[in-house]
Amino acid sequence: MKLKQTFSAVVLGLAAMNIQAAEFVLTDSTKGTDVGDWQVSNSSLGLKSDDHFSVEKRRLHGGKQLGVDVIIVNNGELTVTLVPTRGMGILHVERDGERILGWDSPVKEVVNPMFIDLESRNGLGWLDGFNEMLVRCGYEWTGHPGVDENGQLLSLHGRVQNTPASNVKVTIDDIPPHKITIEGDVSERTFKKAELTTRTKLEIIPGENSFSLHDTLTNHASYDDEYQIIYHSNFGRPILEEGAKVTAAASEVSPFNDYAQAGLESWQTYLGPTKDFDEMVFNLKPIGDEKGNSLVVLHNRSANKGVAVGYNVKQLPVLTLWKNTDTEKQGYVTGIEPGTSYAYNTKFQRPLGLVPTIKAGESKHFDVTYTVLRNEGDVSQALKQVDTLQKGKPVKQSKKLIVDLNKVQ
Amino acid sequence: MKLKQTFSAVVLGLAAMNIQAAEFVLTDSTKGTDVGDWQVSNSSLGLKSDDHFSVEKRRLHGGKQLGVDVIIVNNGELTVTLVPTRGMGILHVERDGERILGWDSPVKEVVNPMFIDLESRNGLGWLDGFNEMLVRCGYEWTGHPGVDENGQLLSLHGRVQNTPASNVKVTIDDIPPHKITIEGDVSERTFKKAELTTRTKLEIIPGENSFSLHDTLTNHASYDDEYQIIYHSNFGRPILEEGAKVTAAASEVSPFNDYAQAGLESWQTYLGPTKDFDEMVFNLKPIGDEKGNSLVVLHNRSANKGVAVGYNVKQLPVLTLWKNTDTEKQGYVTGIEPGTSYAYNTKFQRPLGLVPTIKAGESKHFDVTYTVLRNEGDVSQALKQVDTLQKGKPVKQSKKLIVDLNKVQ
Amino acid sequence: MKLKQTFSAVVLGLAAMNIQAAEFVLTDSTKGTDVGDWQVSNSSLGLKSDDHFSVEKRRLHGGKQLGVDVIIVNNGELTVTLVPTRGMGILHVERDGERILGWDSPVKEVVNPMFIDLESRNGLGWLDGFNEMLVRCGYEWTGHPGVDENGQLLSLHGRVQNTPASNVKVTIDDIPPHKITIEGDVSERTFKKAELTTRTKLEIIPGENSFSLHDTLTNHASYDDEYQIIYHSNFGRPILEEGAKVTAAASEVSPFNDYAQAGLESWQTYLGPTKDFDEMVFNLKPIGDEKGNSLVVLHNRSANKGVAVGYNVKQLPVLTLWKNTDTEKQGYVTGIEPGTSYAYNTKFQRPLGLVPTIKAGESKHFDVTYTVLRNEGDVSQALKQVDTLQKGKPVKQSKKLIVDLNKVQ
Repeated sequence: MKLKQTFSAVVLGLAAMNIQAAEFVLTDSTKGTDVGDWQVSNSSLGLKSDDHFSVEKRRLHGGKQLGVDVIIVNNGELTVTLVPTRGMGILHVERDGERILGWDSPVKEVVNPMFIDLESRNGLGWLDGFNEMLVRCGYEWTGHPGVDENGQLLSLHGRVQNTPASNVKVTIDDIPPHKITIEGDVSERTFKKAELTTRTKLEIIPGENSFSLHDTLTNHASYDDEYQIIYHSNFGRPILEEGAKVTAAASEVSPFNDYAQAGLESWQTYLGPTKDFDEMVFNLKPIGDEKGNSLVVLHNRSANKGVAVGYNVKQLPVLTLWKNTDTEKQGYVTGIEPGTSYAYNTKFQRPLGLVPTIKAGESKHFDVTYTVLRNEGDVSQALKQVDTLQKGKPVKQSKKLIVDLNKVQ
Repeated sequence: MKLKQTFSAVVLGLAAMNIQAAEFVLTDSTKGTDVGDWQVSNSSLGLKSDDHFSVEKRRLHGGKQLGVDVIIVNNGELTVTLVPTRGMGILHVERDGERILGWDSPVKEVVNPMFIDLESRNGLGWLDGFNEMLVRCGYEWTGHPGVDENGQLLSLHGRVQNTPASNVKVTIDDIPPHKITIEGDVSERTFKKAELTTRTKLEIIPGENSFSLHDTLTNHASYDDEYQIIYHSNFGRPILEEGAKVTAAASEVSPFNDYAQAGLESWQTYLGPTKDFDEMVFNLKPIGDEKGNSLVVLHNRSANKGVAVGYNVKQLPVLTLWKNTDTEKQGYVTGIEPGTSYAYNTKFQRPLGLVPTIKAGESKHFDVTYTVLRNEGDVSQALKQVDTLQKGKPVKQSKKLIVDLNKVQ
Repeated sequence: MKLKQTFSAVVLGLAAMNIQAAEFVLTDSTKGTDVGDWQVSNSSLGLKSDDHFSVEKRRLHGGKQLGVDVIIVNNGELTVTLVPTRGMGILHVERDGERILGWDSPVKEVVNPMFIDLESRNGLGWLDGFNEMLVRCGYEWTGHPGVDENGQLLSLHGRVQNTPASNVKVTIDDIPPHKITIEGDVSERTFKKAELTTRTKLEIIPGENSFSLHDTLTNHASYDDEYQIIYHSNFGRPILEEGAKVTAAASEVSPFNDYAQAGLESWQTYLGPTKDFDEMVFNLKPIGDEKGNSLVVLHNRSANKGVAVGYNVKQLPVLTLWKNTDTEKQGYVTGIEPGTSYAYNTKFQRPLGLVPTIKAGESKHFDVTYTVLRNEGDVSQALKQVDTLQKGKPVKQSKKLIVDLNKVQ
């Protein structure tokens, strides 16, 4: 195997699995280094592969993109664009030159967090940069902004997505199927307040129509801490359209607030772009198999295009469904959001047991898989999986609000 | 015509006017690109011109200037320095190697917005970067900071000046007089809050002693929105001095607040640097010709040096005069500020009809012209223009406050 | 003397002292320039010196380090790392390849201020970047966060440390002992609010085990202003350990708050890393010699390793001792903090006369010396100096709180 000589590549002997891999450190904040623009491919690595694959890192420019890095992973089937500067979020996924996962936000640039003041607009600053397919909302807190019991403003959806990754590493297995792994450490470190780091890991295998996240949150402090996380996964065109449908393995669905009451019965189907719709949010209680694995399927009207989001209810016990089917220009999008918590402010979720604790030194794992459903067969197979989990029981519709925002403050 | 080969230059056939132009894209956030340091001149373009002209882009360093770009346009008569990183503001204008338009602010660096927290000091963060000859104050809101009716803090003078331009383009006409056009898009985009973009355009013709702005604000949202804009145009030495005078085409002038009452009678003339003066602000009701074109003239004591600010009262119906004749070190400066609004907080201007609406998809245009008055002839000619607009009527002095800050809150 | 040709070096004739020096301007915001990565050494300068010395400037990468510059000064005995991007703070000092001065903060990166919102968490944003051996806390204000009498939130410990240096200059004396001087200007400039600049100066002589700061704060405004400064000097391993001891020339020590009452008697000695200890803070009234020079000595249990902090009580009349002997992971550290003020919020210190005035145009000087105590001899000699200052009198322990936080608000 021939390695690009300008970068330190380490051939790791993983004895147990008899796998060797080329490892490329792109960013290392402990050494203060960064490779700058960079790329590898199966060709440059001298790897014979049925599927041409490549990984590229480049820096964006223009407006609030100053200093933003993206990593573009092409596995021959999908092209996934990651944003190390924005917490290793996933900007979008392309297939056959078309954006298949992602959405069109009013926010057009990939905004460097240095231009964002999260506490602005009473804690809504996060909205200045929101345009990704996957936003991690956490980990110190998540949910809607509001002043917590201790008097501190918790800004919308936490800080992790607006934190640049400290260390970024690409690993490519030497032997087929040449799994590609992108790891990035994102730190929420504030003296006396938080010592949470998340090792994000994206795995993708050349030629496959799916990829997965395997994140590890660690509390490096000597004290237990709260944490919250929502995997805010957002999909617009071409999957979302009038008549698109979401199917989730769940026992119950209820409206997030009064406004969503009106949409409860039709929670599974989508309107086309609808002026003045704004957003409806639903709280789901997901169910998994014996290992906890659950699945949500979103597909277009013809049921020949979609996405399946797999996660584990032992890690992420609740599911938020965000239906933002307002106009195209406002951002026509739906969010499928497995998490530890719903989207309410933290103070409203503590009494519900939805603000878990991470002990001193402890690590928590989160696994989420995204599968692009390319045709009717893919869609129907995914729906069958949900059906299996559901064991013939319908998702119960409950009008009762989990948190009644009219009554709490 | 020979173009610099390292940059993509497009020869545009503008059939109607039979004009061809060389176009240089300096920054393009949609492609994530930026040319870096760059320059052209009539020579490098192979253009014969009586007036040597050039356009240069370079990056500043030091302190809070990290990552700041400036564009320096020399038309043979004037040298205009634009700041793409600060909303395409105009830092200053030089003539014969001397700063002719602009002022000496206590803020010495060209501050990158990434170092500014607009909501700091109860919404006064804007003051950390204020030193330009032209600051656009808008467009989502403008005016003094304060909590709006919806509970949101509106920071001083809005966000546009602290927003880096997304796309920057230089166009130079191929045929005489080789008009130079600098365009820059500045976006105020926040999910669910604003989708306002402004295509700023500066036009300058080689050899001339003036330049003009032709800005187009567009509301890309599906919903109507409020907007406000003040063209905060600031002048210090060498025009401002003891005995300098401002002459504005207007029907009425009134004090902004109690403090300015004392200066109402002498609103047209300026003190020299005066300790403890702080600032006096006056609200004017400007008048224009049949097309709405109005003019303000500021000139030095000898009336042989000055600036004329032309604008249109149909676009910018009110005029604020800011007299900040405190000491040199505090920033000896006056602001001539045509706008949609006065400098009060937004909530006080809504009842006055000074917070206009921009409809979904609508564009609003703003044209402002700055003419450097180089001698007695220039000054007297400009004063004559104001006189014509005034049609023999004096500017009425009214002691009545448009907004009585003692009574509102 | 041969100078590196790529940089403008000026041979200064200092006639009075007959000293010539090589001067290297690394950053100059007035010209908008920066040298980028850079280094000199006695060899590159063609200087024969018993002690090899070098000065290097380099840019860090990774996470929130984007755009951060450090200057590494090696005088043959000590290696001092300065951070121009963070107000010319001192990150740490190494000797024989080991960190001798500094500490292990939960904050691991050298955080660019552009990622910090000082007013976040009710004014605790400063904690996102706190990890240096020396943090200047000032100069516009210092102390704990809180809303001042005028309604403005004063964020923790002021703004200077989160301000990148505007101008940075290295000077190396041409003749022995080849004193190395690093100067950096840090500006706190806000229109109508502050025009404070600090010329920080670090001096170090090749081969010596000490270095000194000689800072000059200047009020460039036309009006008098308040100022406050704390030289927040922080030490962890290897000096701090169970049984480590601090000895300060002082007349009195009292607890900062109720919690510290319990530690008053043992204020001089340190616990090992202690879970749930959090922090105890003590207020000292330091004493100096006839010139005002005072000294604090911190040494390890064996009294063969330590640091002496010299300062002048005419410049810095009070001393805060911060004992943060919580666990290693929380940041096991003690702060020796000479200042104009204690760590209370500004509004509580005004009545105590601890918020001094700097007149219009006035400059204030601050001199602080750090001496690395390398062995028993060094330590005992330093302790003897404190003893001399103390003139046989003990430090009086007073239980009375200087500010009773239970009673004020």
